[in-house]
This record gives sequence, structure tokens and C-alpha cells, in this order.
Amino acid sequence: MKKSLVALALLGAFSAAHAQSSVTIYGTLDAGFAKTTNTTPGVSSPTTIGKRDNNKLGFRGQEDLGSGLKALFQLEIRFEPDTGTIEGVTRPLFQGQSRVGLQGDFGTIRLGRGLTALQESTVAYEPFNGLPNVAGFQTDLQVGGYRTSLAGSGSDPLGLAGNSGNRFANGVFYNSPVYNGFQLNFTWGTKENNGGPGAAIVGRGTAAAPQYAAGAMGSAYPYSVSATYTEPGSAPRYSILLANERNATEAKLWQIAGYVRPMPALKLMATYNKQDLDNFIAAGKPNHEMDSWVVGLNYTMGPGKLLLGYGQKNPDMVAKTKQASIGYEYSLSPRTYVYLDLSNKKLPTTATATTEITQNHYSMGIHHNF
Amino acid sequence: MKKSLVALALLGAFSAAHAQSSVTIYGTLDAGFAKTTNTTPGVSSPTTIGKRDNNKLGFRGQEDLGSGLKALFQLEIRFEPDTGTIEGVTRPLFQGQSRVGLQGDFGTIRLGRGLTALQESTVAYEPFNGLPNVAGFQTDLQVGGYRTSLAGSGSDPLGLAGNSGNRFANGVFYNSPVYNGFQLNFTWGTKENNGGPGAAIVGRGTAAAPQYAAGAMGSAYPYSVSATYTEPGSAPRYSILLANERNATEAKLWQIAGYVRPMPALKLMATYNKQDLDNFIAAGKPNHEMDSWVVGLNYTMGPGKLLLGYGQKNPDMVAKTKQASIGYEYSLSPRTYVYLDLSNKKLPTTATATTEITQNHYSMGIHHNF
Amino acid sequence: MKKSLVALALLGAFSAAHAQSSVTIYGTLDAGFAKTTNTTPGVSSPTTIGKRDNNKLGFRGQEDLGSGLKALFQLEIRFEPDTGTIEGVTRPLFQGQSRVGLQGDFGTIRLGRGLTALQESTVAYEPFNGLPNVAGFQTDLQVGGYRTSLAGSGSDPLGLAGNSGNRFANGVFYNSPVYNGFQLNFTWGTKENNGGPGAAIVGRGTAAAPQYAAGAMGSAYPYSVSATYTEPGSAPRYSILLANERNATEAKLWQIAGYVRPMPALKLMATYNKQDLDNFIAAGKPNHEMDSWVVGLNYTMGPGKLLLGYGQKNPDMVAKTKQASIGYEYSLSPRTYVYLDLSNKKLPTTATATTEITQNHYSMGIHHNF
Repeated sequence: MKKSLVALALLGAFSAAHAQSSVTIYGTLDAGFAKTTNTTPGVSSPTTIGKRDNNKLGFRGQEDLGSGLKALFQLEIRFEPDTGTIEGVTRPLFQGQSRVGLQGDFGTIRLGRGLTALQESTVAYEPFNGLPNVAGFQTDLQVGGYRTSLAGSGSDPLGLAGNSGNRFANGVFYNSPVYNGFQLNFTWGTKENNGGPGAAIVGRGTAAAPQYAAGAMGSAYPYSVSATYTEPGSAPRYSILLANERNATEAKLWQIAGYVRPMPALKLMATYNKQDLDNFIAAGKPNHEMDSWVVGLNYTMGPGKLLLGYGQKNPDMVAKTKQASIGYEYSLSPRTYVYLDLSNKKLPTTATATTEITQNHYSMGIHHNF
Repeated sequence: MKKSLVALALLGAFSAAHAQSSVTIYGTLDAGFAKTTNTTPGVSSPTTIGKRDNNKLGFRGQEDLGSGLKALFQLEIRFEPDTGTIEGVTRPLFQGQSRVGLQGDFGTIRLGRGLTALQESTVAYEPFNGLPNVAGFQTDLQVGGYRTSLAGSGSDPLGLAGNSGNRFANGVFYNSPVYNGFQLNFTWGTKENNGGPGAAIVGRGTAAAPQYAAGAMGSAYPYSVSATYTEPGSAPRYSILLANERNATEAKLWQIAGYVRPMPALKLMATYNKQDLDNFIAAGKPNHEMDSWVVGLNYTMGPGKLLLGYGQKNPDMVAKTKQASIGYEYSLSPRTYVYLDLSNKKLPTTATATTEITQNHYSMGIHHNF
Repeated sequence: MKKSLVALALLGAFSAAHAQSSVTIYGTLDAGFAKTTNTTPGVSSPTTIGKRDNNKLGFRGQEDLGSGLKALFQLEIRFEPDTGTIEGVTRPLFQGQSRVGLQGDFGTIRLGRGLTALQESTVAYEPFNGLPNVAGFQTDLQVGGYRTSLAGSGSDPLGLAGNSGNRFANGVFYNSPVYNGFQLNFTWGTKENNGGPGAAIVGRGTAAAPQYAAGAMGSAYPYSVSATYTEPGSAPRYSILLANERNATEAKLWQIAGYVRPMPALKLMATYNKQDLDNFIAAGKPNHEMDSWVVGLNYTMGPGKLLLGYGQKNPDMVAKTKQASIGYEYSLSPRTYVYLDLSNKKLPTTATATTEITQNHYSMGIHHNF
């Protein structure tokens, strides 16, 4: 449950019922100490001030339009707490999301920019809360290498350099109502170029010719679809996810994930992914296809919560990535916790390398929602 | 009427009367589908997610200083809903405005950056609500080509590349009280350079020599003045505007506009402009002078509103621009409407061309104020 | 006392006590006219729209965690009121600060980016309220030339070009409780490079070899410490400050400052500084060492306040800087005042010059807190 500021529209409260305006200011500040060994081979990073979660400052609201219809908006600034800049220095101001839409019996439909259906649904099945921390699995392993470090991959391959790889710009976002535990989510995007630098996304068999030059539009309308079934009720004992996404450069991703709670304090999770980059990487070349899997658990003990996870990624002709992580959260309140994360990761030295490197990571800090 | 959040200063409410602090958070999210044919000759844009109105997130407040005097401030972020970036990616964070000042019996005086008197007054006489959408007339035809696409023209010709052309930075903004329907508005700016890239603003008769190099100050103090007379009362049947502006590179603009409401549901509008770039374009050269006019109407039918407009721009030695537009708004509430716009526009292929191109445009979407 | 908006978390007020959420929106808008003579020798700046204080829009809050413990956060946007851009155009979005932490009997500890202990403490001893205006002494004379214009100096020498020189990024900020008037403040930073352009910070005796290239980490963990003693009570008659800071390139700064109030309306202030750049400037070279001092007073007369100050900076082998300033503030309310500042400054023509230039400055404007 998100706790946040609700500043009621007093004008609305004093006037007609249709003007029940409200803007919620919400956000997260998360900062701590972090250290990673072997960030370049043989060299460890110094101790840094880093983050475990995305840091955000958001504004959202809804308006009751009558007959069960609502208008919705949400704007979310992302930033770096250690330097005060916008997330990644160059990302959009409202990196989190900028969306407006309607909600009714038909579900929710929004326009703008936000997480794709697959990327938004998958976090519930990841043992580190779907957070982008180094010890977590969401950004890399849980989406099977489908990410910005590989040209042509990720949800926004034609976006600005440094953009996050799990959102559609120029998107239409649909979420169905929940029917007996079942929900369908669908995201569709235009072929617009979002300022992409035209990294060398080389066509199959034509090594010299990029298929997607700087400023080029997508070759397909990107879409992302996820279907979930979660046991109805306030304490679901199991849930399953099926998802598929195709981006504007026709990278394809399939995902199946699930969790079970054999007892209320214990949540067991697993995800399996498969990615196909056949549109721009010929068979027999590195990263043509890859799969990945993650398993993990959360165990709650009073104010404490233990997080455990292990995962692997297996790209064609490239060294495997293997990661094991353990984390601990201690809640000071429903909105504030402190944490300690440890992880060990073996990964290829470059995105196409067959040699690997081992990194150890620790982080400890404070996470505060408002 | 703007509906928005009013978050009362509870500290103020509980303490002395002079501390009646309030900050209003307000904004607009507008997103929809759009398509324009012939964006380059023979090539139509793909369907895009676009906007009809400026998207904004603002903060404003006032403080009662006693004796009828108030302190006022307003800060307005502008952004692109489809990508989440700041408006135009590179515009100032508070592109909408950043102003502080005093209000009293003498009127309102503010310092900072905002729309000029002419640009702020003119929107009431434009059939598409003064919005910057492609189907509207405000940005191009209603101000007679006085805009950033023509070096030396626009309200801020020495501003950063990509800056909007209808604001003064480093400005003093005065609005008189309304006396029996009459109001005077005056904006004055310094000669400061606002980071202008020094586009080739060529001096008269000296084709090779720009008069305003990169970083150069203005040659004159820019000003903008508008005078309006509007029939007093809550439902004025007629209004007239006279306005004049001279920018820092001495481009000059005159405007006359008016509207009448022959019946409450019908508003008829017209604007005539004349622009003179004689300071830096010699007579007989393209764009030395130009005039433009726009006529249109709004017709309200219950929750629906029909928008119709036609306009022309006639620059010296350059092909005319001709635009016809039709729009429809359907209100879901006083704060939310959906829209459909269609327009047909003939325009020169470049800012100095005598050949023309025809573009058709449609857009449909949702507009939400908060 | 800061007056500002407190928008209570109504959700919290209606639910359990632990969710007493609140976000305070606060800020400052300050704009006015300014003019400086001899900004380049023989040339005066035109009249500009400028500022006396930093302009800010901030968000802060705290959560009661029970047992006297609180979680705190603060995010502060800085901007230029005359152009609407982020402060300095390129500074971080949350240039003011971005910090999160805990407060309890042990004091306050926060992580993120903010003013160093020395820089935060020193403003109480400066006759122009510690504001960064041209007539004030805080930015230049009160910190003894410890500032960004001198490569390797300032609190963040490895930060982005244009960054302010009085903050630590990647910092840990500790403030002790106040014990019988005594308080200790300590700031520590990591050695991380914050995007520094690697200006030529030349090693001692090796004129051609920069010690700190682009992207280089610091050679020491930076720290800043200040200790203050202020007479307990609501109207302290005297206070003293001792402070020391060493930055990531090992520039060192010592400071002693104090004030006395011989009568309630009169506050007399003095500061003495010493800076040592021995780590990267050899003895006998310009700016190897420098000292500076500032004296001043504030005299309150009803709603008016007179500000007077004089200071000198004496760098090795470089012309002295000498500044005299007079200011007047007239309060329209506890949150709003108008001001007039005049100053006369002699300073070296460049950071290493032995020749000097004289600048006169005036500014007048309005300062509004919300």
C-alpha cells in the first residue's frame, strides 16, 4: 500500500460534486552505501553513495466523471539522490511516467509514456521487489538480457542514448478490470523515433548496413501484452504470469512467471524468459537468441524480511551470467525501512564476450516513501 | 474557469492573519493520436501520439500583505506527454512562466519570464482557444509569421535555439485593473542575450554581415502592449483588442482583433496582423513585410463545442499560407474533454519559398485539467 | 522562521498513527533590476533582470517513527527567475539539496547532496544573510576564495562544469543535537568523481602533469566540520563558529566567525578564513595560500533592516579583492520584502592577475518566500 500525501481540492469540496479534484504528491527517497568489486577487471569501485530503488517525486490525480467513469493522470520525476540530477543525468524529466486517460467498467486506458505491460507485470514475481538494485534481478536477468546495453534490444531501442529500456514512449496503455483473478494488460506504441542515436543495429547477413540509422522509425508497431491470474482475495496464495513483447526493431520476448505462498510468511517465485533478436542478428552470431531464469523467495519475520534469489542468463555464443543474492529489510514504519544487500555475479566481460568476470556487491541504506 | 488543487497553508490558518499562505498545484495533461500528410513533400508522418494543448504542471500562490496589496508568484513546468521530456526537450524547466510580483489598486506588476502582453491577450480571439495545436491558428497565422522559424522574428529572437517565440525573458509585466471593461497590458524587457545561437540575422544591404552574432545583445529594449475593451459582465457580447510589439532585434508587429456573441452559444472571432522586419531584411527581399488574418467561430451545443476557422498569411515574395480547420470538443466534466480536429493547410515549402505544399492533419485525444 | 505550505496527509490523519505523512511545498522567488559596471574592463553590463537570493521550489517531509525517531527527506529545485531555466542552466535539477535520513536523540544523519557543514554554518555570520548576491560576501570573500573559479578549489572540485562549489555530492551529513548552545556538524563524502571535466589541476613542481584528469577520483575523502556555540534562548546575544573543510583534491579551509548583539536591533559580525592549496599549487605560485576576512552589521528599524559590510581577500602573488556593500530591506510581511543593494568591489582582472579592476553594482527587487 502506497502512503502518500493527499491534498484535497478544497474548491471542489465546497462546490459541485463533479469537481472532486485531488492531486497526490508522492515519492521515494532511497540512499545508502554501496561497493562493487571488479567493476573493471582487477579494479574495485570505491565505496559510493548509491541507491537501491528508483528515486521519485510524483504527482497524480483522478476526477470522478460520473457513471463510474474517471479521468486519471500521473507524472513522475526520477532523480539521483547522491548528486541531485535527473535520473541518469540525461533521461526525461518525467522518466517514471507521464500518462493521462480514462478508467471505467471497461478497464483503464491511458496515453503517454510508461512501463510496458510485460515490464510492469513482471516485478511481482522477482525476489528483490522488482527494484533496479545491483543485487536484484529485474533489470538484467528477469527480462532475459532484453535491455539497452544490446543495440536493438529493450523496450525503447530508438530512444535517446541512456534512456531506460523498459518503457514505451508514444504509447497506449490498456489494463482490463480484474475478472475472478484474471487480468489482461496491453501496451501499443507508434513507430516514432524518440531521438535514437542510431547505434549500429546491423541487418542479418549485411554486416556493413545498419537497418536502423539515427532518426529512423521502427519497422513494426511495438506491443507488449501480459496476462495474469492471481488467487482472488487479500492474501493470494498463488499467481501466474504469461507475457510477450515485440519492440520497434522487432526484438521479441516471451515470459512465464509465477509465485506460491505455502504459508503467509513465505513467498516462492520463479521466472523464465526467452528472447529472439533474429530480425537483426543472424543465426550463429552472438546474442541471436537467449534465455534466462530466476528463482527466489521472500520470508517475513515481524518487521524483518529476508530476500533470496538466484538466476542465470544464457545468450547464444556468449558467456553465461550467473547471480546469487541475499538481502534483508528492516521496517521502521510502513513507509520506511533500512536494508542490507549482498550479491555475487559472474558475467561476460562485454556484451558479446565468451570470457567472464566475477563481481561482488554490497549495499546498505535507507528507503523512505512519502 | 480553472479548476485546480488548493492546498491551504494550515500553518497560516492556525497562526496570524498575515501568513495566509497558499500554494496551488495545477496543470494540464493532453494527449492523443495525430497524423499529418506531406510533412516532407510526398511523405506523410506515421500516426503519432501527440498533443493538442501545452502540457503543464504549475505552482502558484499569493500572500495578502494588507491594504489591498498582494504578493504573487507562479512557476509552470511544461512537458511532452508522449516522451516525458521537458517541452521541446531543451526548453527551460519553467517554460510556461516564472514570475513574482505585487498586485494592488494600481494593477499587477511582475518580474521574470512569461507571455508578452500581445501574445497573452490574443488567445481570446482565436477559434481554437489559442492552443498551439496544428489545427489552431495562434502559433503561426494569428501572429502573422512572427515566430522562431524566421531568424530575428518572434518575441525572444536572442534566446536559446528551440525556445518558444512568444515570451520575454528578463521582463517586467504590467496589467492594469479593468476599468469599465477596459484593460491595458504592458511588457518590457532588457537587452540581455538569453543564450541565442546567433543565427544569421543579416543586416539590410549587407548580405554577408549578421547584425546579431552569437551572444549579441538586443539593439532595442523590447516591449509589447495590448489594450482590450470587453463588455462588462459575466457573459460579454463583444470585445476588441489593439496590440503592438517590438522585439530586441526590432521586428515590429501590430494586431487588431475582436469577437462578438450574437447569441450566447455563438462566438464569432477575427484577427488582423501586420509584421515589419525592415530592420534586418531589405525591402524587396522575402519576408520584409507580411500580414495575416484569421476568422472563426465557436458554437456550443450542450456538452459539445464546434470550432471553425480560416486564415491566411501573406509574406512579401513568399508563397501564401492558407489554413482551414474544424474541431469538436465534448466535455466529460468541467475539467475534462475529448476532441477531434481536422485541418487543411497550404504553406510555402521553406520560409522563403514561392512554391507551396498541402498538408492535411487530424488529431483526436483527451484534455484534462487539474 | 520559514512560512510555507503544509499539506497534511489526510490519509494518514484518518488511519493509523504511524502514517502521519506530510509534504511541505516551500520556496523562494526573488527577482529585481541589477547593473554592474566594468564587467569587462571599460564596459558596463546593461541593466538586467537578476536575483539577490537563490530561487527555489522545494519538497520536504518527515515521518514520526516512534520512540523519538523521525525519517526526513528534502528535495529542492533551484532556478533562474528571469529565464525560467534550472539554476546556471546546467546544474542538477535538485541543486538545492536531495537528502534522506533519520533524526533522533543522537542528532540528524542524512545521505545525498547538500551544503557542507562549513558552508551551511557560515551564513549566520555574514551581513547579507548569506545570500549569493553580488553585494554579499558569502560566495567569494567569506569562504576565502574557496570556489569554483579556481581549479581544484571549492567543495566539489570534481563535479560537473558549472556546478556550485559549496556542496558535497555523495555525502553523509551529521548534525548533533544542540547541547547548552553547542552544536557539532560533520559532512563526509566519497572519492567519487561527479562528472568533473578535469580542468588542469597541475601537480606541484610538475607543471605539465595534471593530478586530476577528467573523470579522476578524489585523492582523499572530503570532509567538512563546524562547531558553533550560540547563547541559548530565543534572542541569542552572541555566537561563535569554528570550521574546517578539506575537499577531494585536498584544498584546505579554516574558518572562525562570530557575532554579537549589543542591543536587540544591532548584530555585529566578523569572519576570518585561511585557505591552503599546497597539494596542487607550489609555494611561490599564485594562490598557493590565501586568507580573507569580512566584517559587517545588521540594524533593524521596524520593518526596515540596514545591512553593511566590508571584506578583503589576500591570495599569494595575486591582487587583493576589497569589497564594501550597503543594503536595505523593507518587509511587506514576514514572507515578503523589497530590497536595494549597492556595492563597490576591487578585484584582480583574472584569478591569477596582479592588476585590478573596480566594479560598482546596484540591485533592487522583491523577495518572496512561500
